Amino acid sequence: MCAVVGVYGSSEAAKVAYYALFAMQHRGQEATGISVADGTQIRLRKKRGLVTSVFHEGNLSQLTGTCAIGHNRYSTAGKESVEDAQPLFARYKLGEIAIAHNGNLTNKLSVRQELINKGAIFQSDMDTENIIHFIAKSQEDHLIDRIRDATYRLEGAFNLMIQSRSKMFVVRDRYGIRPLSLGRLPDGGYIVASETVALDLVGATFLRDVRPGEMLIFEKDAEPVSEQLFEPDYRPDAFEYIYFSRPDSIIDGKNVYEVRVKTGRQLALDAPADVDVVIPVPDSGVAAARGYAEGLGVPFEMGIVRNHYVGRTFIEPTQAIRDLKVRLKLSPIRHLIAGRRIAIVDDSLVRGTTSRRIVRMLHEVGAAEVHMRIAAPEIKYPCRYGIDTPTREELISHSKTPEEIARYIHADSVGFLTIDGLVDALGRDRTYSLVSFDGNYFAGGNADYPT
Amino acid sequence: MCAVVGVYGSSEAAKVAYYALFAMQHRGQEATGISVADGTQIRLRKKRGLVTSVFHEGNLSQLTGTCAIGHNRYSTAGKESVEDAQPLFARYKLGEIAIAHNGNLTNKLSVRQELINKGAIFQSDMDTENIIHFIAKSQEDHLIDRIRDATYRLEGAFNLMIQSRSKMFVVRDRYGIRPLSLGRLPDGGYIVASETVALDLVGATFLRDVRPGEMLIFEKDAEPVSEQLFEPDYRPDAFEYIYFSRPDSIIDGKNVYEVRVKTGRQLALDAPADVDVVIPVPDSGVAAARGYAEGLGVPFEMGIVRNHYVGRTFIEPTQAIRDLKVRLKLSPIRHLIAGRRIAIVDDSLVRGTTSRRIVRMLHEVGAAEVHMRIAAPEIKYPCRYGIDTPTREELISHSKTPEEIARYIHADSVGFLTIDGLVDALGRDRTYSLVSFDGNYFAGGNADYPT
Amino acid sequence: MCAVVGVYGSSEAAKVAYYALFAMQHRGQEATGISVADGTQIRLRKKRGLVTSVFHEGNLSQLTGTCAIGHNRYSTAGKESVEDAQPLFARYKLGEIAIAHNGNLTNKLSVRQELINKGAIFQSDMDTENIIHFIAKSQEDHLIDRIRDATYRLEGAFNLMIQSRSKMFVVRDRYGIRPLSLGRLPDGGYIVASETVALDLVGATFLRDVRPGEMLIFEKDAEPVSEQLFEPDYRPDAFEYIYFSRPDSIIDGKNVYEVRVKTGRQLALDAPADVDVVIPVPDSGVAAARGYAEGLGVPFEMGIVRNHYVGRTFIEPTQAIRDLKVRLKLSPIRHLIAGRRIAIVDDSLVRGTTSRRIVRMLHEVGAAEVHMRIAAPEIKYPCRYGIDTPTREELISHSKTPEEIARYIHADSVGFLTIDGLVDALGRDRTYSLVSFDGNYFAGGNADYPT
Amino acid sequence: MCAVVGVYGSSEAAKVAYYALFAMQHRGQEATGISVADGTQIRLRKKRGLVTSVFHEGNLSQLTGTCAIGHNRYSTAGKESVEDAQPLFARYKLGEIAIAHNGNLTNKLSVRQELINKGAIFQSDMDTENIIHFIAKSQEDHLIDRIRDATYRLEGAFNLMIQSRSKMFVVRDRYGIRPLSLGRLPDGGYIVASETVALDLVGATFLRDVRPGEMLIFEKDAEPVSEQLFEPDYRPDAFEYIYFSRPDSIIDGKNVYEVRVKTGRQLALDAPADVDVVIPVPDSGVAAARGYAEGLGVPFEMGIVRNHYVGRTFIEPTQAIRDLKVRLKLSPIRHLIAGRRIAIVDDSLVRGTTSRRIVRMLHEVGAAEVHMRIAAPEIKYPCRYGIDTPTREELISHSKTPEEIARYIHADSVGFLTIDGLVDALGRDRTYSLVSFDGNYFAGGNADYPT
Repeated sequence: MCAVVGVYGSSEAAKVAYYALFAMQHRGQEATGISVADGTQIRLRKKRGLVTSVFHEGNLSQLTGTCAIGHNRYSTAGKESVEDAQPLFARYKLGEIAIAHNGNLTNKLSVRQELINKGAIFQSDMDTENIIHFIAKSQEDHLIDRIRDATYRLEGAFNLMIQSRSKMFVVRDRYGIRPLSLGRLPDGGYIVASETVALDLVGATFLRDVRPGEMLIFEKDAEPVSEQLFEPDYRPDAFEYIYFSRPDSIIDGKNVYEVRVKTGRQLALDAPADVDVVIPVPDSGVAAARGYAEGLGVPFEMGIVRNHYVGRTFIEPTQAIRDLKVRLKLSPIRHLIAGRRIAIVDDSLVRGTTSRRIVRMLHEVGAAEVHMRIAAPEIKYPCRYGIDTPTREELISHSKTPEEIARYIHADSVGFLTIDGLVDALGRDRTYSLVSFDGNYFAGGNADYPT
Repeated sequence: MCAVVGVYGSSEAAKVAYYALFAMQHRGQEATGISVADGTQIRLRKKRGLVTSVFHEGNLSQLTGTCAIGHNRYSTAGKESVEDAQPLFARYKLGEIAIAHNGNLTNKLSVRQELINKGAIFQSDMDTENIIHFIAKSQEDHLIDRIRDATYRLEGAFNLMIQSRSKMFVVRDRYGIRPLSLGRLPDGGYIVASETVALDLVGATFLRDVRPGEMLIFEKDAEPVSEQLFEPDYRPDAFEYIYFSRPDSIIDGKNVYEVRVKTGRQLALDAPADVDVVIPVPDSGVAAARGYAEGLGVPFEMGIVRNHYVGRTFIEPTQAIRDLKVRLKLSPIRHLIAGRRIAIVDDSLVRGTTSRRIVRMLHEVGAAEVHMRIAAPEIKYPCRYGIDTPTREELISHSKTPEEIARYIHADSVGFLTIDGLVDALGRDRTYSLVSFDGNYFAGGNADYPT
Repeated sequence: MCAVVGVYGSSEAAKVAYYALFAMQHRGQEATGISVADGTQIRLRKKRGLVTSVFHEGNLSQLTGTCAIGHNRYSTAGKESVEDAQPLFARYKLGEIAIAHNGNLTNKLSVRQELINKGAIFQSDMDTENIIHFIAKSQEDHLIDRIRDATYRLEGAFNLMIQSRSKMFVVRDRYGIRPLSLGRLPDGGYIVASETVALDLVGATFLRDVRPGEMLIFEKDAEPVSEQLFEPDYRPDAFEYIYFSRPDSIIDGKNVYEVRVKTGRQLALDAPADVDVVIPVPDSGVAAARGYAEGLGVPFEMGIVRNHYVGRTFIEPTQAIRDLKVRLKLSPIRHLIAGRRIAIVDDSLVRGTTSRRIVRMLHEVGAAEVHMRIAAPEIKYPCRYGIDTPTREELISHSKTPEEIARYIHADSVGFLTIDGLVDALGRDRTYSLVSFDGNYFAGGNADYPT
Repeated sequence: MCAVVGVYGSSEAAKVAYYALFAMQHRGQEATGISVADGTQIRLRKKRGLVTSVFHEGNLSQLTGTCAIGHNRYSTAGKESVEDAQPLFARYKLGEIAIAHNGNLTNKLSVRQELINKGAIFQSDMDTENIIHFIAKSQEDHLIDRIRDATYRLEGAFNLMIQSRSKMFVVRDRYGIRPLSLGRLPDGGYIVASETVALDLVGATFLRDVRPGEMLIFEKDAEPVSEQLFEPDYRPDAFEYIYFSRPDSIIDGKNVYEVRVKTGRQLALDAPADVDVVIPVPDSGVAAARGYAEGLGVPFEMGIVRNHYVGRTFIEPTQAIRDLKVRLKLSPIRHLIAGRRIAIVDDSLVRGTTSRRIVRMLHEVGAAEVHMRIAAPEIKYPCRYGIDTPTREELISHSKTPEEIARYIHADSVGFLTIDGLVDALGRDRTYSLVSFDGNYFAGGNADYPT
């Protein structure tokens, strides 16, 4: 998943990047980093941890320069994950370079093998290292030409922030799978960020989304220059709307919260339920539950309370509460649930483990019936375009029908949004990436092997 | 504010207390502590910080014993606050004793002066130290008699957990101002806690609320004994329902969330608004906004997103975002707000500072009108019964009418629940403590001097 | 053991106390604290940990005021040790008071019982709490009279720093068991500290030792006033010279390092050895080994290297090095030891555990003979005057002759300084406290029960 | 400077490496790392900090495998120093590789430029990255041949630990500038480490020094194989004896402590002084001062006490002690110094800053005369072979005669060991690297440009 940000022409570039990354913390909590260029050199700080724990006034103030790129990294299972923070920095023939990347290259492994065969070394597990190698090995005399060379070699989903000692380059893949927006800062500089919420927080004016296949070149004392690197074939990822982006983000002109409410309304058509009350799984299911309740004409209630102090709880629960692990995070309001028929709404169903715990919790406080409703279609295929989904075998919808899932999680029924219904909710003006639902790996990769 | 818990007869008393305090973290985040008695001695750990940071498997496992009392402390401004964690431990004539206290003694200062004049020393600023002195100075031969002696000297609001090396005593003031519930643990022991959510988390069965004026005595190999220490005059605090307790708690048989929805419905009668959408301040105003929207027949939307990663942000914002401090925590969904007439609902209005920032934020994203609605009456008097309200002068409703407040926070209007409406929402079966609203200091104290 | 410091009339009182405590860190590493009075109130910070970890620029700068008292606490086994940091602060009839105490009261238990019977409570295990109770319960109108009342009730060893909001009182017991020196600060204020090294570090001029039985009163705009509270019976503790104080300290006009060299020379007379080389246990035995080598006319070599990075090592050693735990801290120089007859010199022998490990280590690198020499007499009695010695049974010299000890630690011989030899080395101008060696409990207490 | 260790064939390889690095902490305190191979993969942990703070039972136990290499890094000024911890890990054509390097490559910059021109990228500032590139770019099919290829390209000082998933290779440069010893572990495996003290701590038997120009190959179920890669030209660094190695280490058969005592005796011939007492700068000058005192026939005293609690002191000293910064670490014994003629002995004189502070400190406690004696020749040239010396201009002996230095540091005289005297003390059986003293850059590099 991950978040990227690029800031150019701001006297407080590192701080702007810091706040932008803070606003996009939900896209990656494992590690974070910011590199800053001042025309002479690039300085970098990156580390495991949340944005607010990795950076403080002291180390941010040392990141002087008017161009910053930054990255939040999502937790992944890989053994090297400790070291794999971004931006990635290197010295090469033309000087210093730093790159931050959001997405996933589907030809990563073959490309890596090719580079290794030519004598390259890889110090991380990140596909970002491929890109930097392509740039370093290009025979071109100018960085911009080397970036063209390199990006032509990439397949899959990528939003790139590339920084030299004085310039910044932004590249979005031809499909525009991950979101990327351009804004103008109050002090005159520019910001490019994965989500518009980053622009909002730093007071930037939204200008437009970066176009699929577009490269933006930022240079001193000049307006940003746009170049269309690839023929565009726009297919923004539906998952960003239904699951990953923040509800206050706007992608491709559509507000995420509103799309989610619409998926809820559509879900009422695709998978109605005869219930007394609609309750969201907080906070992920709130907007869709709102729409679902409205669609059904049934009361909506915040019947499950989320504990804001969760953090890491290392204490082994007593026997009595061992089975109630979910209760450390979620707590049901008995009065709203006991004796009633409940529709519980969430934004997605991946493995079914959490859903199972939530259904059991609702039964324990006396729900008469529990109907699980998911404001997304069945996830049957692993995403290969930057969302960290488990293997096909771990996806519960890969092997189980809704009826089988209902039995597994002890719900009275389970209902999903149809793919058609999802596209209705998103709007039919655009083709979307629906790979997790329909297995159409249009940008390379397949269901069986991770790249 | 604060939370207390007492556990008796459990083989995992410290862990049960830990989880109970975790469930009641919202009642106090400054400091926490647990003391445990094993029949021979009392062991204590207390420290500044959240429950999950102060305790870990290592130090909890050293707190062996079957009786535990615990405390969460709310942040207060006092200079000694660093040291003032509870439970308070002491050795005295009959051996060892530990006390945890939730509430506020209105005769604290006069009592302290009297004790000091007799040669007592005070090592903290906590009124709990008064109680321990009274017990130590009593001439009675048994602790229970000394507790009776001591509690007769106390005025105000108090829920006491008192622990000797082998017994536990629980005392609730005659008014029952702060909530206190009794439950049975799955392994046969008992738990007493400020809120029922603590019972829920540890899998305890709710038995009943501790009665106003009641003392419960827990002793080895015996059922708890009840004794009515004071003539009851039950007046549970309305503030617990509208502001302080968790929505999933049940006080005096009433669910907090449901009461809040009712206050919202009542608010629609007391202070209607001609708006397009009702939006809560998350998370405090959600339930009331639900009721308000229903009462008005207007859509309810989660139009403000709460950032879950807030924590402490030490980085001084850039000039551009200096005025947007509230945005680090709350972020508006522009699509839902721009060009519309908004009712924004919160659970209380104290100083008006945050409301002012929220209103400005809504205007900045283009709200056509902003109507602030508060699901509580105007707060005109400082609480002296355990809620940490500012001085009278700092309470905006002390000196300003709703119209003046509207001008101050730049809202188109401000509307409050009436006191009568609040009592309707709470139910007319009971007299409530409404001191912050009506200034009726029935349990001592007054508006002018803190005690 | 512990260290105390008092600073009066300095614009940087807290910083001066900080540096003084830093210089006396060897007297106590468990906890530290500083309280500061500014004429209006007393502020206190105390915590477990080293001086440099508990205090930093931020918290020291909040301790404003011209009078500071401070304390380093030695690690003790007591269960309450976590909480028992000093200075101890309290409010009482005359206002606020803070006390720091170095020593041990031999009538502590009986006094505590008496106070408890009168209704006092004790929140710590420190005898300092006795003193504060005596002061609070005195009927006198002035603090100075209450201090007189209180100190008349104390037996044993005590150096007290007592601070009100505007004055400071220093009291030394009649025997002057623990050292205490008075100095003048460069900026005109005064400093009183356990060891002269504290004066040296802060650039103070040594004025004189505080006299046994003396009280010093420090008051604004006045020279310190001296009052003889008790008939003096001067008996400084021999242990301070041979073991506890820093070698650069001067006690009663005698330099600790020089006394230790003399004990080494005397040891050459009392317990000579036919060896090739004299090696100290670093750093405790260095000075005495110097004297011993000189006395014997045999080369002195630093044949054991001390590791400066020891810290806390939590890693369980591999089987191979499990038996070599001492090697993490001490490492022998094989070239100097192999095939030679070694005299290994230390400053004291308490349980014999460490000596045993050192002797084994020397054998492992090929020592031909190992003769352990101790520059102190046999420790047969627990100190009750402020040095934390183990119980009589744990003292190896209580039950074993030097020959038996030699067998136990696998040395070829063990030799001690005689008591007479020690007194010769100290000088016969003065009576010393030799309680650990001769069991003369002149200031109360006895060998069997700790007080 | 730095330390390296390699462990092969041990069931507790990571723990053995941990203890070895702990024993060699003095060679580098900035960062540390251990990588472990288990036949299938290489796992790595490295971080800034001391060995005992970077590793704990938890993370060490995850480093499973029977082959470990480790590294301690010395603090350097470079901006990238934060990231530049070792071992360096990479994936390349033959699989995974990790390298730890102690030394300095004198052709590092030209080699790096050559590699960069061919399209290589550098992610760190470490010359170790050159080596890994040479290995990756070699056309050979076996790692051993690639290592040969790579090491033939290196000039300067290098001790390399190279680890594949199942083998370990150790290479020492032809001059044997930095020490490197081979030992056998108690459990049958092997250890190679910079200093013999590492072998001692883990209970290994010293077998022999690795030979200059030698490569050792460790492989499963086989004895280590030796191959002479380069024609040897043995010139161990004299600096290791006089300054850098631990006194209990043995290099090339000579004990460091004994060499230092001999340099002291020789110093008495080269630069005698008419003094009353000889005092070492602790702990660096202790052994040499012992020899110097013996040579002069003058008493030796530990007249300066070292504070063991120094750590990082962030508190800005008061004005009074601002000039006494050295006193936080070193404290003079006034009784031994006042009124006497002092020879103060240290192991080297680099910038003169610390010496100046020490001389002033001795004058302040009343020394009649202060004669600084250095048990090493004048340092006139920067070392380019792995010791981090400052630039030529910063070396006080580069521009000042001993008389001028004496004036600068306010000493009555300054005396150095002659180069000839140093060689006498080391023994004339061997040619030594004396580059810092005589500027003979036999292994490349020069005085003017760092490599």
